[in-house]
Amino acid sequence: MIEIAFRPDRASDVAVHRQLAEHLAALIATGRLAGGAKLPASRELAFALGIARNTVTQAYEQLVVQGRLRAHVGQGTFVAQHGSAGDAARGGAPAARAFAWDGLFSRRARGLRMPGGRLSDVAGSFPFDFRAGQVDAGSLPAKDVRWALAQAASAGKLPAIATHRDARGWPPLRREIARWLVVRGIACDPDDVLVVAGAQQAIDLAARVLVDPGDAVVLEQPGYFGAALAFRAAAADLVGIGVDDEGLRTEELARLLAVRAAKLVYVTPATQCPTGVALSERRRGELLELADRHQTPILEDDYDSELRYGGPPLPALKSVDAAGQVIYAGTFSKILFPSIRVGYLVAAGPLRAKLLLARTAADFGTGVVEQAALATLLRTRGLERHLRRMRRIYADRLAAMLAALARAMPEGTRWSEPRSGHLVWVTLPPGADGNRIFESALGRGVAYLRGDLFFTDGRGAESLPLSFASLSAERIAEGVEVLGGIVRASLRPRGMRSGRPLRARAPAIPLSPRKEVHDPRQKGRQQ
Amino acid sequence: MIEIAFRPDRASDVAVHRQLAEHLAALIATGRLAGGAKLPASRELAFALGIARNTVTQAYEQLVVQGRLRAHVGQGTFVAQHGSAGDAARGGAPAARAFAWDGLFSRRARGLRMPGGRLSDVAGSFPFDFRAGQVDAGSLPAKDVRWALAQAASAGKLPAIATHRDARGWPPLRREIARWLVVRGIACDPDDVLVVAGAQQAIDLAARVLVDPGDAVVLEQPGYFGAALAFRAAAADLVGIGVDDEGLRTEELARLLAVRAAKLVYVTPATQCPTGVALSERRRGELLELADRHQTPILEDDYDSELRYGGPPLPALKSVDAAGQVIYAGTFSKILFPSIRVGYLVAAGPLRAKLLLARTAADFGTGVVEQAALATLLRTRGLERHLRRMRRIYADRLAAMLAALARAMPEGTRWSEPRSGHLVWVTLPPGADGNRIFESALGRGVAYLRGDLFFTDGRGAESLPLSFASLSAERIAEGVEVLGGIVRASLRPRGMRSGRPLRARAPAIPLSPRKEVHDPRQKGRQQ
Repeated sequence: MIEIAFRPDRASDVAVHRQLAEHLAALIATGRLAGGAKLPASRELAFALGIARNTVTQAYEQLVVQGRLRAHVGQGTFVAQHGSAGDAARGGAPAARAFAWDGLFSRRARGLRMPGGRLSDVAGSFPFDFRAGQVDAGSLPAKDVRWALAQAASAGKLPAIATHRDARGWPPLRREIARWLVVRGIACDPDDVLVVAGAQQAIDLAARVLVDPGDAVVLEQPGYFGAALAFRAAAADLVGIGVDDEGLRTEELARLLAVRAAKLVYVTPATQCPTGVALSERRRGELLELADRHQTPILEDDYDSELRYGGPPLPALKSVDAAGQVIYAGTFSKILFPSIRVGYLVAAGPLRAKLLLARTAADFGTGVVEQAALATLLRTRGLERHLRRMRRIYADRLAAMLAALARAMPEGTRWSEPRSGHLVWVTLPPGADGNRIFESALGRGVAYLRGDLFFTDGRGAESLPLSFASLSAERIAEGVEVLGGIVRASLRPRGMRSGRPLRARAPAIPLSPRKEVHDPRQKGRQQ
Repeated sequence: MIEIAFRPDRASDVAVHRQLAEHLAALIATGRLAGGAKLPASRELAFALGIARNTVTQAYEQLVVQGRLRAHVGQGTFVAQHGSAGDAARGGAPAARAFAWDGLFSRRARGLRMPGGRLSDVAGSFPFDFRAGQVDAGSLPAKDVRWALAQAASAGKLPAIATHRDARGWPPLRREIARWLVVRGIACDPDDVLVVAGAQQAIDLAARVLVDPGDAVVLEQPGYFGAALAFRAAAADLVGIGVDDEGLRTEELARLLAVRAAKLVYVTPATQCPTGVALSERRRGELLELADRHQTPILEDDYDSELRYGGPPLPALKSVDAAGQVIYAGTFSKILFPSIRVGYLVAAGPLRAKLLLARTAADFGTGVVEQAALATLLRTRGLERHLRRMRRIYADRLAAMLAALARAMPEGTRWSEPRSGHLVWVTLPPGADGNRIFESALGRGVAYLRGDLFFTDGRGAESLPLSFASLSAERIAEGVEVLGGIVRASLRPRGMRSGRPLRARAPAIPLSPRKEVHDPRQKGRQQ
């Protein structure tokens, strides 16, 4: 048996098992415990050192996880050899050559990258967090959620819930979703509803069942990066269509479809992501007419239609879809919280059957405990109450953001004025360096997702999608003030440390070929 | 305003809102409420009829869900017109032609079908439920699960959990999984772990990042139908390799790989699905050597390695994977319950990066509330305690099933004798009509998944994968007795209503080209 002289320092803040792990790591590093050496059984070592067996076990486990020890069931624990899986994984001296994965990836996987930028560019916690996709963490209905989960996991209900296997979803939830969709003007049978893992999976499943490599898929530009990612994962050819203050530019779409067949038109009519613009009634008609004429399916992502703060909501495109040409997707991630991965698809006939098969192949369905809890939240109207509350909170925050932008941003800055959703799309004045402003903002604790994330072709660095969801009205004002200062500073000519900001000399850079998202100086144009 | 003469029958068992809905449905059916007619606002009708407003709302909603009414936000509720989306969806008189989806499906979707048979062939509840994939619903650790969920949704923890967004998974769960894998001999860093939506998604993600249409993927035959489904969804060319009492027949694999490159070898070494055989040590070496020689990735599905009832467990293939060639998948669905859709992948380097991108595109990650609850169950050893308990319970049930088979089955029946998992693979005597027996068994309340579900080419009708997980030892004995009677009866020549069963005259039908799964009369051969 190897001699392991170790005496725990009980006065230390460091837990004894960590002390032991560090001691053993040092013995291994210095070669006093050689590669392949067998360690004493935990019981023996614990006895020899006068410490708890669990302490030894924890130290061993920690070192196994670090790749310094290896555990073989029924044989014992050994010092890792060079070239073991653990070493190879963390770049230690490899005895075996690392497997050459790069040549093996599928065509779909080779083309897979985060569109426009990387989400992880902004990780961590920031005092002024304007990142898209969040909710107000301080307003979560924790009590209702806890109660609904407890119901689902009650001794009486858990057996049925735990053993339920139907990729379509938990029947009570499908019923509640069909009822929930009534306010969107959608009359559907619970059997037409497929519960999915968030709107993202809805998009991905549509891509799986419809898109072959090279097929054209139409996206809004700027548009939702998750959709671009899912369509890239199907090796689609992404075709961007511009967005203006009436939403998707249908005349552009008409020109495209006249010369090229598209497999799918992906659209966010209620709250265009990221501009927040609603697709106008005229454009809705044109879109449906075009889709019908060219027999092109539409994927309607109604992801946050429930978060509407003013103006008459238009019913979903799906509500006037007589032929069943619209695939409808929705989610609870925006109205409850992003990490609840439950959304839904509405589709009928042969499409529904294919979507269900694709879903089964993908993951056999969404966890039923969370589905059952959500069904309870819907049935008891807990979610509706929460939504009403959040509408008030977010309406105030939207107003605060728009007011702060008007106060803080230099002349030439433009922004959308949404009446729904959680984002304001800000476009910097000509001459502003979006990349430099992004870095400076991060340095001052102001975080947002990069604008180019919402384009498929690298444009958008000069745009800032600012979410008003997660900060109080006061913090929003403060953060926009800081951001405005950074933008103003960036507009000063090099060498100038103070003085008036430069006036915009060039015309506004259009993000879409022609018209742009709402310009606050032209009120009344937005319907 | 339309006159709606309705008087609630308070003495009835039928809720008043249902009575009202039926009354309105009758008015619509008889044309007294014509298509397009506007219904009174719920408040008005409630007042007029002297009932609660909520009663009216519920009745309206029910009829909207049925497609008889349509709700337009801000406008009111209307009697549905013929040809509305609701009618079209349920096959009513269509005003618009139904959209022609069939010509639009992707190549992947066109090839998508349930392998071998349909899971839904056996839906519902049966007194003798031997269907694969279930657990003992009576032994669920409901209290621990409830407590762990309550922890996750506590006011203090929910904000961080609800807003967490990292497709890799909840960090504490990845740490616990890395620790959990120590007993499998796997030393991995939490960063090498990707939390996925069950083993099925692990397989699907591997297919997405590696398989192009037409690529060869090697599967065990019989083998796990979920894997076949996921690889079909990638339009792979499925190549079956036989299984015998040492698991995957590596000599067959060697012959295949000598003439054809495979993109992936999918294997279940710990408990071959569905035979329950463990891959022998010799075959493990041969498999790894072959994979190395041909530079072919292995996907190791270790889906129920924890459910081992005897004999020395072999460490995972991944534990000796120096080059990082093995993609390792595991799940909590078998040891906790099937509807918890949480599993994991272990992979490193460029493969992990691609898998993570594919996962992000697929659904942005698994719900974090359930991940956090599972992390708590692991950290507090609640899952370990449950597993120890289930091992004892399942070991008894396996013994009961093997004993019952020996008592009840006619000569010529063969079955595997697994020491792990939840399935016994029974092959009927020559001459038995598997299809007829399946139907008769269902009629007597004995349910199992059809054997041909586990083959990609229609074989297997004469095999019965019997799960011993969900029934007590007594019920197992009873059910197998019933099944044995059906099999015996089916072996009688037509016209004979009693008498001794026919003796097998032909040699046993091998499911694999040569050796077959364990024959109970040849004990000792299984390692």
